[in-house]
Amino acid sequence: MLENRIRNKTLQNKIMSADEAALLIKDGMNVGTSGFTPSGYPKAVPLALAKRVETTGEKIKIGLFTGASVGDELDGSLSRSKIIRKRLPYQTNESLRKYINDGECEYLDMHLSHVPQYAQYGFLGKLDLAIIEAVGITEEGGIIPSTSIGCSPTFIKIAEKVIVEINTSQPLELEGMADIYIPNDPPHRKPIPITKVNDKIGTPYIPCDVNKIAAIVVTDIKDNVRPLAPIDDISKTISGHLIDFLEHEVKVGRLPKTLFPLQSGVGSVANAVLGGLLESSFENLLCYTEVIQDSMLDLLDSGKALFASGTSITPSEEGLIRFKENINFYKDKIILRPQEISNHPEIIRRLGIIAINTAIEADIYGNINSTNIMGTRMMNGIGGSGDFTRNAYISIFTTPSTAKNGDISSIVPMVAHHDHTEHDVMVLITEQGVADLRGLSPKERAKLIINNCAHPTYQPMLKDYFERAQKSKFKHTPHMLSEALSWHDQFIKNGTMKRLP
Amino acid sequence: MLENRIRNKTLQNKIMSADEAALLIKDGMNVGTSGFTPSGYPKAVPLALAKRVETTGEKIKIGLFTGASVGDELDGSLSRSKIIRKRLPYQTNESLRKYINDGECEYLDMHLSHVPQYAQYGFLGKLDLAIIEAVGITEEGGIIPSTSIGCSPTFIKIAEKVIVEINTSQPLELEGMADIYIPNDPPHRKPIPITKVNDKIGTPYIPCDVNKIAAIVVTDIKDNVRPLAPIDDISKTISGHLIDFLEHEVKVGRLPKTLFPLQSGVGSVANAVLGGLLESSFENLLCYTEVIQDSMLDLLDSGKALFASGTSITPSEEGLIRFKENINFYKDKIILRPQEISNHPEIIRRLGIIAINTAIEADIYGNINSTNIMGTRMMNGIGGSGDFTRNAYISIFTTPSTAKNGDISSIVPMVAHHDHTEHDVMVLITEQGVADLRGLSPKERAKLIINNCAHPTYQPMLKDYFERAQKSKFKHTPHMLSEALSWHDQFIKNGTMKRLP
Repeated sequence: MLENRIRNKTLQNKIMSADEAALLIKDGMNVGTSGFTPSGYPKAVPLALAKRVETTGEKIKIGLFTGASVGDELDGSLSRSKIIRKRLPYQTNESLRKYINDGECEYLDMHLSHVPQYAQYGFLGKLDLAIIEAVGITEEGGIIPSTSIGCSPTFIKIAEKVIVEINTSQPLELEGMADIYIPNDPPHRKPIPITKVNDKIGTPYIPCDVNKIAAIVVTDIKDNVRPLAPIDDISKTISGHLIDFLEHEVKVGRLPKTLFPLQSGVGSVANAVLGGLLESSFENLLCYTEVIQDSMLDLLDSGKALFASGTSITPSEEGLIRFKENINFYKDKIILRPQEISNHPEIIRRLGIIAINTAIEADIYGNINSTNIMGTRMMNGIGGSGDFTRNAYISIFTTPSTAKNGDISSIVPMVAHHDHTEHDVMVLITEQGVADLRGLSPKERAKLIINNCAHPTYQPMLKDYFERAQKSKFKHTPHMLSEALSWHDQFIKNGTMKRLP
Repeated sequence: MLENRIRNKTLQNKIMSADEAALLIKDGMNVGTSGFTPSGYPKAVPLALAKRVETTGEKIKIGLFTGASVGDELDGSLSRSKIIRKRLPYQTNESLRKYINDGECEYLDMHLSHVPQYAQYGFLGKLDLAIIEAVGITEEGGIIPSTSIGCSPTFIKIAEKVIVEINTSQPLELEGMADIYIPNDPPHRKPIPITKVNDKIGTPYIPCDVNKIAAIVVTDIKDNVRPLAPIDDISKTISGHLIDFLEHEVKVGRLPKTLFPLQSGVGSVANAVLGGLLESSFENLLCYTEVIQDSMLDLLDSGKALFASGTSITPSEEGLIRFKENINFYKDKIILRPQEISNHPEIIRRLGIIAINTAIEADIYGNINSTNIMGTRMMNGIGGSGDFTRNAYISIFTTPSTAKNGDISSIVPMVAHHDHTEHDVMVLITEQGVADLRGLSPKERAKLIINNCAHPTYQPMLKDYFERAQKSKFKHTPHMLSEALSWHDQFIKNGTMKRLP
């Protein structure tokens, strides 16, 4: 079996235990790994490193660069062992989130399309080591990635040494699903030759200098995929509004009947929103996205969608079983690309992507907070939402109109952290309704957002704020700065944004 | 002379007075015009419209769409006559600015690369009329633009009718400087085939259906160009820091000796900052920018720069004379492109642009306010700064560390309006020094910005804010929301951000 997986014979003597390979990680190093969502990330070596540090008390602090979030074996165990000094560009792990919010980890929250480019340009410092999960290695040393591509091609290119984790739980049939293309550096960069969602432009493996491969570890630890929450009524209502909006755009001739390629954010709400398309009248859909979740598999299964391009497959546990069992069905319907390509402004704008992302909160002028709850508490990160939103044909944000059992309004006078500005957000959807902000001035947007998207509990308070703000001297984007963030401040102090008696 | 300018004979009977042509403008229309900076915009027809409304008291309200800012004959006279109901995407006119801040005009502040695309996609409503300044019309009806291209190609394409202002003060030698290319709509869009700053990919005229041309007005009103402020010591110091930074990047191998193509913002400070390159050691520079100002002509004159691509030529009055006198020298060193191409993410990222833009204020975490003074008072607009910043090889913002004789700190705890977020800003430069934010977490950025960029008067106050904020529970982007905007609030109330006794 291993001969199928490690086809270059000279490399077979690089096989060692995870404990041995983990010795290559030294204090002060920058380490880049595969992984994008809890999918395709190395597992055995980080677990061995954490165990060693826990046992020996050795002081090891590293910079950890990944594609996006990864599973608990990497982010969780290294956070709990306090091994991560610096972390980029995205995370969703409970232990790491606490470690970041406690101020113990320097966390960089980056646009995901920027990461490979900045690493390649030398803007993130030297990359000492890459740790890459693979399903196999070709005779020439080409690394065949598993369930995500992320930044692996660039990390392998620029790292001094490479550790490969051959994961036998990942089906070898994944071979052929990846399409690896790394743009040249300026001034030698050429147009990226993708004009259709299913264009293949690269190689099915990641080129790698065999001499850089310092260790090969064989493991069978499965991707620690996350369960998806059951689809609730609010998600269903939001999904319904989205479909109504898209149908209207088709009716007035601004979208074709097959729509344009869809991008959908990650998580339960995003999955539910996309899931609504299953019962819609749209046909022959295409997806050009980051992460392929259950609802996208459903769309492919049903024939509603013809093709999906992404950088990662991250279904639920049930979805992963279905994916593996039917891998030959999916194989000619899915391409996995480096995140530099899946999220590239050039391609997103060219293909005319419909971008659907989730907001933590929006303000009356259309600014979006995607990252910091109450302005200071990091949730996950901006991820690819900025790459898609800025360059989309239509950019859409969804959020339930309230959170915390109604004590938080997701529509506020001013967002407490800005990730997407008024210049980038076209459509806002809550379970209350749709605000189509295209072509509107700030004051026109405010009226629409308050009327169509805010929860009835908070509508009068927002109207009151907006009316009083308009009495100030300058009326382009009316605000009362001493009150603009007071809703958040009150929540921090009293646990509710509701008007206190 | 006019036969040289209007080469299609059947069009000669469309020549009429500005007063007659202005009658084509009706209440409720959306009107798109040429013009990008006070350069290449229509002058005679808007002046005639304003005069008529002033004389007759007729009620006319229009939506006015342009490339960017335009001269006083258009924005000024139509604002003073209260003719503009809605205005996009940028402005710099004193009368219009007051009209916007008084709340009498619905103003949309847009990324300039988005405007032609949104107009073409139908997101801005129907365009009833285009008014385009030209140096001539070809035999086939092709419109030869004057000193700016802006959105003219798209406006001509989608407008129901077109008025052409043939401006005889604009030299016919401008013919050949324009390169007109309009991307196809998705799903038929192809890669934009520019891989070098001086690539020509289109036609030297704007294609136009002859039957759409409803009027031709001949005028000789000159572009109302703006004087440039003399270069002051602060601008010189900022320019010095910029050059030191770029030299360091060359030294460590992150930039070649000729740098990468430069983009520079518009205005006196930006002009001064770029002017510093004249005395630098860099050679064979290239510019891929929006607006070609005096300092860029200086770079071409001196041979320091080889080529400049933009969407507009806007020198000072002296610069304009120099440009016209030496137009044959400049003709093979300058290309003017539609703003969809000069500002296109695809090209900016491919060419590896060094983007240098001016901030109104920055905060300790690297967010930038480019538009709204004290959060509510519109200055100009975001312009192209977002197009370039997000997609640049290196994105740089410059600002003097204080304004209003020291009563405003340009470095604040939190910017009062967000145009560029922490995710996009790589380098901040004031006369105090340089903060290179690449690869840094929010807290690391804050330390560097406070130490290197803040004015000594405000440094202790910023340190105090940052230290106290770090005592809050969540320490990723530490803030005290009740104080975050208090500096602005205090300035509004007391006229200074300085600590009051």
